[in-house]
Order: sequence, then C-alpha cells, then structure tokens
Amino acid sequence: MKIGLIGLGRMGAFMAERLLLNGHEVCANNRSHDKIKLIEEKGAEGAYSLEELTGKLPSPRVIWMMVPSGETVQKTIDSLIPLISEGDIIIDGGNSYYKDSVRRYRQLKELGINYLDAGTSGGIWGLKNGYCVMVGGDKNVYNYCEPLFKSLAPADGYKYTGESGSGHYVKMIHNGIEYGMMQAFAEGFELMHASDYKIDLQGVANLWSKGSVVRSWLLELLDNALKEDNNLSAIKDYVEDSGEGRWTVMDGIEKSIPLPVITESLFARFRSRQEESFGAKILAALRNEFGGHAITKK
Amino acid sequence: MKIGLIGLGRMGAFMAERLLLNGHEVCANNRSHDKIKLIEEKGAEGAYSLEELTGKLPSPRVIWMMVPSGETVQKTIDSLIPLISEGDIIIDGGNSYYKDSVRRYRQLKELGINYLDAGTSGGIWGLKNGYCVMVGGDKNVYNYCEPLFKSLAPADGYKYTGESGSGHYVKMIHNGIEYGMMQAFAEGFELMHASDYKIDLQGVANLWSKGSVVRSWLLELLDNALKEDNNLSAIKDYVEDSGEGRWTVMDGIEKSIPLPVITESLFARFRSRQEESFGAKILAALRNEFGGHAITKK
Repeated sequence: MKIGLIGLGRMGAFMAERLLLNGHEVCANNRSHDKIKLIEEKGAEGAYSLEELTGKLPSPRVIWMMVPSGETVQKTIDSLIPLISEGDIIIDGGNSYYKDSVRRYRQLKELGINYLDAGTSGGIWGLKNGYCVMVGGDKNVYNYCEPLFKSLAPADGYKYTGESGSGHYVKMIHNGIEYGMMQAFAEGFELMHASDYKIDLQGVANLWSKGSVVRSWLLELLDNALKEDNNLSAIKDYVEDSGEGRWTVMDGIEKSIPLPVITESLFARFRSRQEESFGAKILAALRNEFGGHAITKK
Repeated sequence: MKIGLIGLGRMGAFMAERLLLNGHEVCANNRSHDKIKLIEEKGAEGAYSLEELTGKLPSPRVIWMMVPSGETVQKTIDSLIPLISEGDIIIDGGNSYYKDSVRRYRQLKELGINYLDAGTSGGIWGLKNGYCVMVGGDKNVYNYCEPLFKSLAPADGYKYTGESGSGHYVKMIHNGIEYGMMQAFAEGFELMHASDYKIDLQGVANLWSKGSVVRSWLLELLDNALKEDNNLSAIKDYVEDSGEGRWTVMDGIEKSIPLPVITESLFARFRSRQEESFGAKILAALRNEFGGHAITKK
C-alpha cells in the first residue's frame, strides 16, 4: 500500500527502507530536508512539506508518524488536521505516553479521523531483523493497516493488543522490563570487572550467549560492545532515559504494585547523571555531626 | 573418555545422557539406587557405592560431582579422598560458593589431587540445547578434561575462566543477573495483569520473542509457562532461592559496589516467602501512633 511517513530519524529511515523492500510505496517527510534526499535515493517519494505529503496520498490516507514523543507528536497531529479528511488514518509509531495516545484518539475520533498507537521495538537493527510491533486502537483500522505491520515485523512479530492506548502501554512495559534487564547485566559485569580474577568480560558475554539461562539479545549486544573495548574506556558513565521507564514506575504507583527492580534501574540512570549527589553530602555531614566521622573535603 | 558421575538429579541425569550420546563412557553413582537403574538403561555403567565407582575408573580418574552445594559436596569429597590417588581429577559441576571451591582446591592440592570448579547453566533443557560451562582451576587439568566440556556444551559454549574458583564465581554472577532479569519480567507482567486493558499475556510474551529488545530465553520460557495457564492460577506466589543470589549480593558488599537490582530481586523472593511481614505491622502501628490512621485488625 501507499503510506506517508513523517520522521526520518534512525528508526524512521530504516522503517521506510524495510517498507520499500516489501513492495510498499513510501512518501516521506522530515524536518531536515537532507534526510528526505537520502531516502529518495532508496526509492521513496520525497515530500518537502506536510501539504505536499497529504496531497500525494490516496484516500483514505495512511500516515505513519515516527517523531519524538510529547510536543512534536502533538504539533504534527495539529498540523495534519486541516490537511486530511474523514476516514484517514494516523499511526503514532513512537514511544508516546499511552494516556496521551488515548486522548489523541478521542480528539481525532470527533473529527472522524482514525488513530492507532503502534509501539515499535527493534532499534536500529529492525531493518535487518524486523520490528516487533504492538498496536492499539479500533480493530477494523488495524485490519486495514495490517499489511504495513506485517512488512515491518519478522514472522508473527506484530499483534493487535486491544483498545486505544494498549499498543503504547504494552511497549511502555516492554521498555520498563528492558531497563531492569540492562541494569542486571550492568551490575553483574561491574562485579566481574572489579574481581581479582582476570575475567575476559567479552568472552563471558559471548559464552553466556551459548546455552546459558541469561542468553538474550541484550547480551549479544553487550558482546558486540565489549568486542570493541573490554574496558569500555571511551564511554562516559552517563545514561539518558526517554520516558518509558518513568511511566512504568508511575503505572506501578497508580496501581499500588511494587516495582523495586524497574524503579531502581530508573534511579540508577538518574544517579549516573548527577555530577555530585547532594544526598551523599547530607549523609557525610550527618555522620560527621553524630559520630565525628571525617568528611572528605572538596 | 571414561568418567565417573556422582549425582543423578534432574541436571546430572541429563548430563550423563548427553555424555553418553557423545560417545563417552559414564560410570554413574547416586544416593538412591532407582536412578542408577534408569541411567543403566540409557547405556551407563552403574556404581552402587563410591568404592565401586572409583574401582571402575581408569587412571587418572575423572570424577564429576553433580550434587547439592554445601555439606553434600564436602562430604562427597571427604568420602572420595581415601578411595582415589594422586593425579586424579574431581570436578564440581554444581553451584558451590566459589570461596569454598578455592578452599577445596587447596585441600586436594596438598594430597596431589586435581580439582576443577565447573559452573554449569542450562537447567533441564541442557540435554537438548547443551550446557553452558564455565571452568576454573589449573589450565593443564582443564585441557585434559576439555573433551567432556566440549560434549556437554553447544558450539563455543564452554570456557576456561581462570584460576581456581573463577568458574563458580562467573556462574554465581550469571545467576545473580538471572535473578534481576526474572524480577524485571515479573514486575512488567504483574503490571499488565493488573491493567484495565485485557492484555493477552502469553500473546505478548510470544510477540516480544519476535524482534523486540527484550527477547531472551527466559521470555521464551515465560511464553511456555503462560501457554499452560495465562493466569498462573495453579502456582503459589512463593519463590525459593538457592544461594547464588545471596553470594552475588555479598560480593557487592565486599567490593563496595552498589547492586540495587540484584539485591531487590533477592529481597523480593524473601518477601514472597513471608506469611506475614513484621515490618509491615511496624509501619501500620507507627502510622496509627502518630496520625491515628486506622489499623487493619487480624
């Protein structure tokens, strides 16, 4: 089918390519125009404005957004509304907060426009391996767009998860679990790195990928990373987060469900970003106050 | 080669079978004799006492212990010492605490007996998939036994990890990471189970195995478990631990390395085993004392 794609970042560009390889027509738009040129070379039709994009799509239009969550998603939708018609379909393939997706679904429903939330996992490897796609929204709209999901995913790698928001909800939980798994590997490998045994970390990551209980795609990626440098000396110990971990923890708070591991893995990222910890200063000051324990001066 | 195997529990029996399938001779001993009969039917030679076992092995004897860690390992070694000779090799394939393994290595070294610590991962699936084997001890002894490790493991699935104790150390860390990964899945799936979206948990586990970032063997096992019952209604929320998680946390304490996720995943297991939490009673009592908040009476 013919699809409009907005957003040619790392994931969007690869998804365009995968759709083209699977025989779809892709009309692609991006904020910076050099990326449109690049994807034109791969066989996509370029659209240098949303007007051009919507003008080039047959009815009902199917527009896949692959833009940063939050304000950019909302702005893109607001800009699209005057350019599209009843019956058209917008798909948010990014990591939006699921409650925002439900709100947008309702906002667009009132205008007769269809909205799907499609959580998409696979990172920059999706072009090769296929993306795992979780889709929420109206079932009939999902059915109409299924050829796209099928082309993006590996065999059996896409699923209708239920009502609006459920696709992004399931993707949010996926990412929360990912935080916990990553932190578990981080802690185990930090211990081995500090061991008196001279442990070949890359060798262990590679070994565990063969038949052990912790074998996983993340472990294979760790094997890759350590292959380049067993001490990761070029990498700063600074870790960003992009929302899904926070929302998962908030979901636990709303539902009164304890999430010690996912919460700690989020907080470990916060700690990694602090240049100094005021909390640790408080602890040092208190130890000095009650016990006369020495303070390490700056 | 010909090997003596002590311990025909779930893992030991499958390992015997895998060794037999790969052309080794296995002389097998077990505390309860019915399991010896079963493995004899698979082609092993039965040994109904340690005397019989050691009497049937050529020199140098290679004896693989697959018995519960702690006292049973020590008792088995102490019983073997008068029955074996200088140059013989004992391999501990269980989950012993690595410091115990170093102590045993030294104890046996004084008697001229060789000792390897071989951490073995793969559970009851090792017969089919092969076991991941991590071996510590003297390199020349490892080299001599390599045909065994090669037969037990899948391709590239075994490794010499270094000095005595390092095999069990790396296996300990492996299991600590496993605790964290399992708890991350546990938390994410508990959230989805509590969601207003009617999420098909087994379907999600299956979906995520296709191209998602959290794809892993543990997720495939979860898919299996949920296939039988999406609500796990027949399973009590009670989780044992068998030592490696505790030792990993102790290692973090010894090295002053923070392990929030592995520690929390261990403590979540402790909490699952409490019929009531005295700590929670303390909290309820204090809330009542300072704020008059109602106490839930027993």
